[in-house]
Amino acid sequence: MYRLYDYLFSGNGYKVRLLLTQLGISFEYIELDILKGETRTPEFLQKNPNGRIPVLELEPGVFLSESNAILLYLGEGTPFLPADRLERARVTEWLFFEQYSHEPYIATSRFWLHNGKAEEYREALAQKQTPGYAALGVMEKRLKDHPFLVGDRYTIADIALFAYTHVAEEGGFSLEKFPGIQSWIERVQAQPQYIPITSSGKH
Amino acid sequence: MYRLYDYLFSGNGYKVRLLLTQLGISFEYIELDILKGETRTPEFLQKNPNGRIPVLELEPGVFLSESNAILLYLGEGTPFLPADRLERARVTEWLFFEQYSHEPYIATSRFWLHNGKAEEYREALAQKQTPGYAALGVMEKRLKDHPFLVGDRYTIADIALFAYTHVAEEGGFSLEKFPGIQSWIERVQAQPQYIPITSSGKH
Repeated sequence: MYRLYDYLFSGNGYKVRLLLTQLGISFEYIELDILKGETRTPEFLQKNPNGRIPVLELEPGVFLSESNAILLYLGEGTPFLPADRLERARVTEWLFFEQYSHEPYIATSRFWLHNGKAEEYREALAQKQTPGYAALGVMEKRLKDHPFLVGDRYTIADIALFAYTHVAEEGGFSLEKFPGIQSWIERVQAQPQYIPITSSGKH
Repeated sequence: MYRLYDYLFSGNGYKVRLLLTQLGISFEYIELDILKGETRTPEFLQKNPNGRIPVLELEPGVFLSESNAILLYLGEGTPFLPADRLERARVTEWLFFEQYSHEPYIATSRFWLHNGKAEEYREALAQKQTPGYAALGVMEKRLKDHPFLVGDRYTIADIALFAYTHVAEEGGFSLEKFPGIQSWIERVQAQPQYIPITSSGKH
């Protein structure tokens, strides 16, 4: 059985919990407290030298890190990852966009605000507004006239972008001016076996 | 014929130029000056709404962005991307590591230093030292006793990480304490059809 090392507040972890649950795959859930340094212990660094969750233990002693790499691994051969070459490329294009142009602004802001760092990181938070809204603008451009990010159905690209976008307001980003994103959030939440980010999943 | 929109100084663009050249694929090379805003024009934003190079035009009007998504697209079915499921997962694990934990520190520092911003960005440059060296440490842990990042041969994971690692010193990062990385750089540079980052490739 898969074992997922995770942190409940993490959107990156949520991506994996959500896909595993929607695929109907059982898994053992192990909660680590990143605020207490539990992902920086020598024991955990054996699992992921980069010291980050989520990490999926595929079989005893075989660990896969990077949330979007895990999505690609689990999605292979399922309806969540298209078989068509160009559609697959579009999925990975969104996955890299998410990690480079979206997560560092929207997720990081949410993490700081959640942990009471609004004052300490005031300037850094302000600097994240422009690039964070730019990322939402790129998504809106697609979603204003398409139901999902790739093709016409729900894929791991939607899972990856949904994770932090639907809680963007917790990071100080209003979705008011992004009607396409708002409708898409409702479509994702209506998918079978959907679980909220506050859930550790069906495991 | 493929058309590559690129900027010669860019390591992200270099990844694509290098792979295309090593695959023996002809392409048209279009240089855009990102410092002059040439990737933020309405015309270019039609090609990539995120306003970044590299962009590969696969056929007239079909554009693929995100350097590592392009590597995965071009690598499919070639010796540069393994067929084995776990090895493919390891490749994508390195590709996401590169964009999230490596590029924002090492590549960004190099870009600022190259453009004479050492004083203006002095504090930001200093903040990038610790995470940048941490990323090199993660690579060294693998490369100190393995010839390449995944399996025992050269893949797109090596191309993606090589791009900015071999010029890390231009970003103020010394490779002196990373002998595994140093040997790996020599192995990459010895690959057939290798081109340096200063070359626009064989096209």
